[in-house]
Amino acid sequence: MAFVLRQSEPDFESRFSAFLATKREVSEDVDRAVADIIHRVRTEGDAALIDYSQRFDRIDLVQHGIAITSAEIDAAVASAPIQTVEALKLARNRIHSHHARQMPQDDRYTDALGVELGSRWTAVESVGLYVPGGTASYPSSVLMNAVPAQVAGVERIVMVVPSPEGKLNPLVLVAARLAGVSEIYRVGGAQAIAALAYGTETIEPVAKIIGPGNAYVAAAKRRVFGKVGIDMIAGPSEVLILADSDNDPDWIAADLLAQAEHDSAAQSILITDDEALGNAVIAAVERQLLTLPRAEAASASWRDYGAVILVSDLLSALPLVNRIAAEHLEIATADPEILLAGVRNAGAIFLGRYTPEVIGDYVGGSNHVLPTARSARFSSGLSVLDYVKRTSILKLGVEQLRALGPAAIELARAEGLDAHGNSVAIRLNL
Amino acid sequence: MAFVLRQSEPDFESRFSAFLATKREVSEDVDRAVADIIHRVRTEGDAALIDYSQRFDRIDLVQHGIAITSAEIDAAVASAPIQTVEALKLARNRIHSHHARQMPQDDRYTDALGVELGSRWTAVESVGLYVPGGTASYPSSVLMNAVPAQVAGVERIVMVVPSPEGKLNPLVLVAARLAGVSEIYRVGGAQAIAALAYGTETIEPVAKIIGPGNAYVAAAKRRVFGKVGIDMIAGPSEVLILADSDNDPDWIAADLLAQAEHDSAAQSILITDDEALGNAVIAAVERQLLTLPRAEAASASWRDYGAVILVSDLLSALPLVNRIAAEHLEIATADPEILLAGVRNAGAIFLGRYTPEVIGDYVGGSNHVLPTARSARFSSGLSVLDYVKRTSILKLGVEQLRALGPAAIELARAEGLDAHGNSVAIRLNL
Repeated sequence: MAFVLRQSEPDFESRFSAFLATKREVSEDVDRAVADIIHRVRTEGDAALIDYSQRFDRIDLVQHGIAITSAEIDAAVASAPIQTVEALKLARNRIHSHHARQMPQDDRYTDALGVELGSRWTAVESVGLYVPGGTASYPSSVLMNAVPAQVAGVERIVMVVPSPEGKLNPLVLVAARLAGVSEIYRVGGAQAIAALAYGTETIEPVAKIIGPGNAYVAAAKRRVFGKVGIDMIAGPSEVLILADSDNDPDWIAADLLAQAEHDSAAQSILITDDEALGNAVIAAVERQLLTLPRAEAASASWRDYGAVILVSDLLSALPLVNRIAAEHLEIATADPEILLAGVRNAGAIFLGRYTPEVIGDYVGGSNHVLPTARSARFSSGLSVLDYVKRTSILKLGVEQLRALGPAAIELARAEGLDAHGNSVAIRLNL
Repeated sequence: MAFVLRQSEPDFESRFSAFLATKREVSEDVDRAVADIIHRVRTEGDAALIDYSQRFDRIDLVQHGIAITSAEIDAAVASAPIQTVEALKLARNRIHSHHARQMPQDDRYTDALGVELGSRWTAVESVGLYVPGGTASYPSSVLMNAVPAQVAGVERIVMVVPSPEGKLNPLVLVAARLAGVSEIYRVGGAQAIAALAYGTETIEPVAKIIGPGNAYVAAAKRRVFGKVGIDMIAGPSEVLILADSDNDPDWIAADLLAQAEHDSAAQSILITDDEALGNAVIAAVERQLLTLPRAEAASASWRDYGAVILVSDLLSALPLVNRIAAEHLEIATADPEILLAGVRNAGAIFLGRYTPEVIGDYVGGSNHVLPTARSARFSSGLSVLDYVKRTSILKLGVEQLRALGPAAIELARAEGLDAHGNSVAIRLNL
């Protein structure tokens, strides 16, 4: 059963702070192993990928090939249930439409002095998308990661996905095709990250690597950061639900469990001003757990990290909401816009009783790759901005240089950078 | 003397690739020491800051205080030369005007199905700005890092700066006041980063840490990433100049040296289609070096990493420009816009013969914190976007849930996430 916290209790602040500080990361000491793997891939290339895949994924890449062929993707598409493919297409189209609005605009202007300034956005040339194998191999995540790259205009969208014992989720290939992925390789783990960053005979290196993975993948991404760009390091998923008394406890319980079923480190939190609702939700969670196929993960998550926080009123709970800075925030109240106005830190917000967070996981159109572990305080969900970069532009004529040059020379002098000063002075005969 | 590469030579591609792969990072094994420092600051707080400052900066913080007082800043402002303060104000105002244009707009709309979607931007609540001590303690960098935070609406802009032997560049304090810095602490190194990330008795923790530093600071930023946000890890500075025959070799040489004087790991590259200009620039660099106060760093940089690349024409050099992906790119030609159109990867571009890069360092208005070491292929210079984060918003009514719910249920089923499916189905009585 989840942890219950009452705002009215005198030790609430210390208990809430301790709750916020709870670590849900599985800490594994993988860094040394990852350094070795990266070194071998850099020096041995494909041979290292073949060896590691044999060892970790028990697949012979000499026989199967490192690259997944177009024919294999055709076969996956042909084998996929038509209603699943249609649902993926709907999701793909809605993600595309929403993300197209995120494309930043170039800006070029001339200021009062006649100085031309500008910002120009261009797509990253190539990105590598890591897709986990096994049970966490989600076609929806392929769409969420690849479609914004497609919208941004990335030319090479390269996907890597491990294929343990040769098994591969065909829907992942279907999603890759729908999202415009241009190359797919059947490798995973730190070795796949190393191949994307440094290249091998078969895999051309990319400029940026995105996508979630296990501790080895995360450690490898940290290590190659700098050589290539990386996205955020995703942690276990979480939901926070703000609910007033006028909710069906079963609906709220279902939403809490949708988060909890991801894995035992996921976190589901309910904040309510109605203790009766809180108790009813707790009872409903226990009831629904009985019939859930993934009950083991969900009940461990709910037991270890679940929480019900009882507050006097929901508006006064907003500071708690902002401190929790949840990846997903549901506001299940009659007028959610009032509370929305006071929320500052959240990855994504789901408004009203008919917007379960799961809609955002699949077909809402917004991205489901969102900041976890309180990082919504300083970072954003995945968007087109992650696949473009900005170049600033400056253009002066001699008049503008005469106007601004002396101040630049003064600052260069103050900073002891004489050559800086010279490069302006020489043009003005100063 | 710099390296000369001729595009016409048969081994150009392999020599150019080797040139691109040259590491300029000073690799120091500091990670273990940094882990210890962070641990001590987390457990001992201010006491650890006091001890490390005594040891590394030979300053007694018990006597001087950890916080820099308003009176100390007043004194710095009073002591600063008026023309320097005026130049800083000009820079501050120009940086502010330019960055105000970068503020992203919220977006809220209703799609054809009646689904409401949105993106809302909010400022990061608190940021910590690291300012190096000693010779690299630049007031211009304080402005470049803090003004965008001010524009974004960050409430707490906290600065940390080491004060070796009690010395502190007063202009750094002046710049901090001009840029709206709200708190300043006289600590540096990994211990300052740890204090910003985890807090001590005196220093409240922040949500994001920005600013350049030495290897210890960079390693500490990597370690606290996740707990707080960080900006890019800045490497040595670099300039690439594209110049046609119609240039004064002394102007180009001055620009190359303005970069080279930063430190011995800086890099200055000239690409020209005129061998005579190339030779004249090389001669001018040698000549100007004779009178440069920072000749030691500049000549080491030019000798070890400087390069002159001779090409048949500048348009055909654009692929090389994009592979180099320079932090700073000057296009010193009669019609720079033609070449500009073909540049994809660069931190900032300076157009024409009267836009030396140094203007961008100080008073152009654009930011001088830019991606180094080829990272302009995947990242952007510092901007207001680094101080805001986006929350996505989704709102469905029952009609919209009826329209989209079945596809979400289908995808949840395909991914084996039954609780996900339940949270939609329960609302639709499916």
